[in-house]
Amino acid sequence: MDLVDELRSIVGADFVVTRRDQMQQYLLDETPQAVKPVAADNVIVVKPANASQVSDILKLANRTKTPVFPRGGGTSTVGGPIPTSDGIVLSLERLDRLIEIDMENLMVVAEAGVTMETLLRAVEAKGLLFPPHPGDEGAQVGGIIACNAGGSRAVKYGIVRNYVKGLEVVFPTGEIVTMGGKLLKNNTGLDLIHLMIGSEGILGVITKAVFRLYPRPAMTAVLLVSFAERHAAVAAVPKVLQAGIIPLAIEYVERDIIEISARHLGLTWPAKTGDAHIIFTVDGSNEDDVYGQCQRIAEVCDANGAVDTLFAETKQEQDAILKMRNELYGVLMPDLAESLDLDVPPARVADFLDAVERIAVQYGSRIPNYGHAADGNLHPHLMMDLQQRELLWTVKDAIYEEGARLGGIVTAEHGVGRSRRVYFDRYTDETSKQLMRGIKQLFDPNNILNPGAAIT
Amino acid sequence: MDLVDELRSIVGADFVVTRRDQMQQYLLDETPQAVKPVAADNVIVVKPANASQVSDILKLANRTKTPVFPRGGGTSTVGGPIPTSDGIVLSLERLDRLIEIDMENLMVVAEAGVTMETLLRAVEAKGLLFPPHPGDEGAQVGGIIACNAGGSRAVKYGIVRNYVKGLEVVFPTGEIVTMGGKLLKNNTGLDLIHLMIGSEGILGVITKAVFRLYPRPAMTAVLLVSFAERHAAVAAVPKVLQAGIIPLAIEYVERDIIEISARHLGLTWPAKTGDAHIIFTVDGSNEDDVYGQCQRIAEVCDANGAVDTLFAETKQEQDAILKMRNELYGVLMPDLAESLDLDVPPARVADFLDAVERIAVQYGSRIPNYGHAADGNLHPHLMMDLQQRELLWTVKDAIYEEGARLGGIVTAEHGVGRSRRVYFDRYTDETSKQLMRGIKQLFDPNNILNPGAAIT
Repeated sequence: MDLVDELRSIVGADFVVTRRDQMQQYLLDETPQAVKPVAADNVIVVKPANASQVSDILKLANRTKTPVFPRGGGTSTVGGPIPTSDGIVLSLERLDRLIEIDMENLMVVAEAGVTMETLLRAVEAKGLLFPPHPGDEGAQVGGIIACNAGGSRAVKYGIVRNYVKGLEVVFPTGEIVTMGGKLLKNNTGLDLIHLMIGSEGILGVITKAVFRLYPRPAMTAVLLVSFAERHAAVAAVPKVLQAGIIPLAIEYVERDIIEISARHLGLTWPAKTGDAHIIFTVDGSNEDDVYGQCQRIAEVCDANGAVDTLFAETKQEQDAILKMRNELYGVLMPDLAESLDLDVPPARVADFLDAVERIAVQYGSRIPNYGHAADGNLHPHLMMDLQQRELLWTVKDAIYEEGARLGGIVTAEHGVGRSRRVYFDRYTDETSKQLMRGIKQLFDPNNILNPGAAIT
Repeated sequence: MDLVDELRSIVGADFVVTRRDQMQQYLLDETPQAVKPVAADNVIVVKPANASQVSDILKLANRTKTPVFPRGGGTSTVGGPIPTSDGIVLSLERLDRLIEIDMENLMVVAEAGVTMETLLRAVEAKGLLFPPHPGDEGAQVGGIIACNAGGSRAVKYGIVRNYVKGLEVVFPTGEIVTMGGKLLKNNTGLDLIHLMIGSEGILGVITKAVFRLYPRPAMTAVLLVSFAERHAAVAAVPKVLQAGIIPLAIEYVERDIIEISARHLGLTWPAKTGDAHIIFTVDGSNEDDVYGQCQRIAEVCDANGAVDTLFAETKQEQDAILKMRNELYGVLMPDLAESLDLDVPPARVADFLDAVERIAVQYGSRIPNYGHAADGNLHPHLMMDLQQRELLWTVKDAIYEEGARLGGIVTAEHGVGRSRRVYFDRYTDETSKQLMRGIKQLFDPNNILNPGAAIT
């Protein structure tokens, strides 16, 4: 029996796609064109219904040494799920049961293929909160765990890692293992759950997860604070935190960039003065609490050089500000060669912005740069002109070198995927790389899972 | 040159202890007598001054295949650091520099031998907070990371894992590796930091750490809520969380046990009615905030069967309540054979308390049981009479079996150490154990680091 027949016998003929014209959407992700990996020619898309079928597929692949590319929502911006060698795309889309929202334990149990949109709406409907919020709600449960997704709410609530309490994983050799559970503390041996989180599909296939939930804050508010220039803006952030306020999100944007987004959306950026802006989103249990936090933030920023503070009173005003910020990537995307994802110590954010600006001037380009200020997580956007002038890699080299000089790392939240392997390799010590490769070999002796991604 | 001479040449003669009568405190920890492992006969205590000396010691040990037992504050309750075979006790006590409290990045950098007491006081003096608080402030930085320490504040702030942003680690083969840094997001490859956290000294020696800090809350308050019986008490906990309040700590105690502690301390347990009590500790940015939270908790508990609510107004009243709770372990210790550390889903806490009580009745003993209610983390205390009647292991078997039946695990916060290996082995699947052993072999090919502990 050939591979396709065997796959059909596992999942049923309806769930094996072999015609290229029917699988285009499984060969792509959200990676910008200039660095998007090219899918291999001979790919089979398989859609299992449950962990047991995933196990059978992996056993078959392991026996025949066939590469397997696990796929969630396809929202990677670094080519994570793209099948770069002949093999099987393993789409988790049919594992889409939101199994339970457990109100007594404050946990949600969901299969890997549940989208963030479904999960967030279901949790909200119960009056609860799943705190992390990666930008694209098309992302799926398995993917956000495999990539330890971040997003803007990490200031207060941290990244996805902090919320994963249980996992069901199918290992490359076919074993189905349940780890953890509805448990808030767990120190039983080496922590395989935390090793799976952020492993980018190279160690095992996540089929189910248990997440911790939080109460939903009664209210949120948005405060837009303007500074004459970036150093004053960035310096104000730790002062706010030191004053005892932990906003939900602290986003940094500059006027020239955000006004591109505003124009595109037919909106007006409401800040009348200043070139450097911080958008504070605050949550709380009642109006007094939230207004009190906003007032305190405004006071601290005033005392630290703010030139204007704008409190978004209505939901409409709040939404407009956040929309201009959130649509930035989409607005820039058509001319984008690549978006980077460095993390630097939060206090070095302004220095890093300066450095990227110097590089932009040096190479006669424009590099829009914005991000999650309090996390030190910035996204320099390299535009198509650099690609056209064959300067993309030169400029990237320069930016990563500046990031490293400031104590930073290659990727904060998007992961290594396929498009950042060369920089991961350059900035990671040999001992760590050897240990990572050793772990990969231990979990996946025939190297069938997502070859070409992350550390592989 | 023999081993002792080589060690002297690395750290200096003053820092190698070979006389048994001078090393007694290095052969012990806080494990209760009945299950405390016995130290081997031929032990050398070595006290390096820095990571480079740690590296030289590990290279020597690796070459000579000499077991090495890394040691922090010796506050383990599961025999974690006890040298159960001939070899080297590696005390990190001289790596005691608190290197920096970085106010701009809100991070603290400390060597492995810094005690929690030193760290907490230094951070407080800067108006900041290191959120986790393991019970014993004699614990050291390296130890709380290697054991992923928990404690009561985990309800709001989580465990130590959430705060570790950078590590310096010396691997068994001598390489010194720096991981992460003053970075809040980091997805660069398989996460070796999170693999080191909770690894109980079997994968590498932690020599330095970077922790994230938080603003210090302006105020805390203590609320003691009484219920007629445990099921009502435990059922009220998720209602409080669902109402949007996340207390710093939610501790559960029963009258008959807490009154032993009160009598011992010459204090009076202030709750006049009810047998099941929950101690809520709440923090906030001002008086209104904290009182508002307390009032809301009281309302929710009233609506869910509370028979009495006592607000500890003065610092003295607060301290007295927390002291009676915190001293429970010390009060019970003289007659204690072993304290367990299971975690169950939070909603099963009352069922687990019932199960342990049934077992106590069945075997004619008394098993004080209390713990971190919201975390599902309970500490059944097995007393000496069980040991004397040779029932200790029978009763433990029964308790762990009930824990597993309720979806629980063997150890929530204390770790496997030496005293819980048999139960870790019993309740962990073969695939996970094989992977853990494979990781151990990868990191430590000659099995020199802490042999006999955790999964080894």
